[in-house]
Amino acid sequence: MIISYDGTSYHGWQVQNNAITVQQTLQDAMESVLQIRPDISGCSRTDSGVHAKNFCLHFEYDGVVPKENILKGLNTRLPDDISVLSIEDAEDDFHARYSVKSKEYKYYIWNSPVKNPFLDKYSWHYKSKLDESIMQKAAEKFIGKHDFVGFCSSGSSVVDTVRTIHKFTVERQGDMIIISVAADGFLYNMVRILAGTLYYVAIGKINPDDIPDIINSKDRNKAGITLCAKGLFLDNITY
Amino acid sequence: MIISYDGTSYHGWQVQNNAITVQQTLQDAMESVLQIRPDISGCSRTDSGVHAKNFCLHFEYDGVVPKENILKGLNTRLPDDISVLSIEDAEDDFHARYSVKSKEYKYYIWNSPVKNPFLDKYSWHYKSKLDESIMQKAAEKFIGKHDFVGFCSSGSSVVDTVRTIHKFTVERQGDMIIISVAADGFLYNMVRILAGTLYYVAIGKINPDDIPDIINSKDRNKAGITLCAKGLFLDNITY
Repeated sequence: MIISYDGTSYHGWQVQNNAITVQQTLQDAMESVLQIRPDISGCSRTDSGVHAKNFCLHFEYDGVVPKENILKGLNTRLPDDISVLSIEDAEDDFHARYSVKSKEYKYYIWNSPVKNPFLDKYSWHYKSKLDESIMQKAAEKFIGKHDFVGFCSSGSSVVDTVRTIHKFTVERQGDMIIISVAADGFLYNMVRILAGTLYYVAIGKINPDDIPDIINSKDRNKAGITLCAKGLFLDNITY
Repeated sequence: MIISYDGTSYHGWQVQNNAITVQQTLQDAMESVLQIRPDISGCSRTDSGVHAKNFCLHFEYDGVVPKENILKGLNTRLPDDISVLSIEDAEDDFHARYSVKSKEYKYYIWNSPVKNPFLDKYSWHYKSKLDESIMQKAAEKFIGKHDFVGFCSSGSSVVDTVRTIHKFTVERQGDMIIISVAADGFLYNMVRILAGTLYYVAIGKINPDDIPDIINSKDRNKAGITLCAKGLFLDNITY
């Protein structure tokens, strides 16, 4: 199942005890449509406030409700900030998380002296002009297979911190700077730290040529800040 | 002063006794910045839930706070759904409402089987495919100077209901249909009724060739429905 959601009102994807999450909201709707409460596995644990344009999940279901009816029933019951885009049969060995070949995230920076009321929930607002070309120059230094342990927040239990970034671009469309990064996987807060590192490059706190050394240092303190969640979108997943 | 606002949380522009409006919210912020509470006149009375990309207003001020500081001070104090884009000196005889030469509104229809969580507050969602070319054909019939009394809701005290539409286009960008209409002025709910009439054309309830007769009938019941407020944007004002 592919869904799209505005993460503003949710404490991320994963079910939690005391907070509303996307997974739980979806499970509630599925229980209402299917008359059973399926276990659902998401492709990613997006954080509180992060959005997803195309988020993939899988579940097992051997009931009689046709896919089209499940889709319509869910979209009728789900709140306006979550939509089911499509449902299809998967191979028996498919797993929304472990079968991922590549994930692409986008980070949006509204780079204008004045905030945009319509995009404020979907971007980080930064007033002074940022040079997207130097950010692009720094982004290219990240391409390849590296140990990104210096680009993740603590609190994760992941042991293997090596990831391969195969695309990392920065473009400007008017006042919006769009950072796109695709990899075989990402560590906790990694995209927001990568975006914050490009921001540090743009304000002169980091030189693009120092990026390889910063990666090799494996030191979180040498990278940039963690940019805020609301500018981050899980854009696409490839299996 | 040019402002931009997301109208979702407001009961329109105009100050009301028991509801929060954009005008009142702006006046509160201005009082805090200027130490006086100015009278402000807006270019239009947008309805509850309607958005504005460029909304012009004027006020008289002979105090000492420079324009740049007023702009910064207001943007610091205003909520995230209202932004001040610019402030400039006006001629003594300028009036935000009476000096208007042309206003352009846009109406957005998200025309897809599935709603878009990111655009749901800024468009009307309609699931079945609408043909934008027949809507465009109907739109052209409205161009010119007409009595639009059949295209306004009751409850307005306006006497002269003649208006001149000089632009009326319908285009599709992917799943979004964008209706753009510019005129020397609009009657109460007129854009939403015009958009609803194009919608009636698209679903076969009205024939484009009957538009001139419908205008001449001056009968509200012959026009289409009033589409919902959230799809409507005051896009631009020309003086």
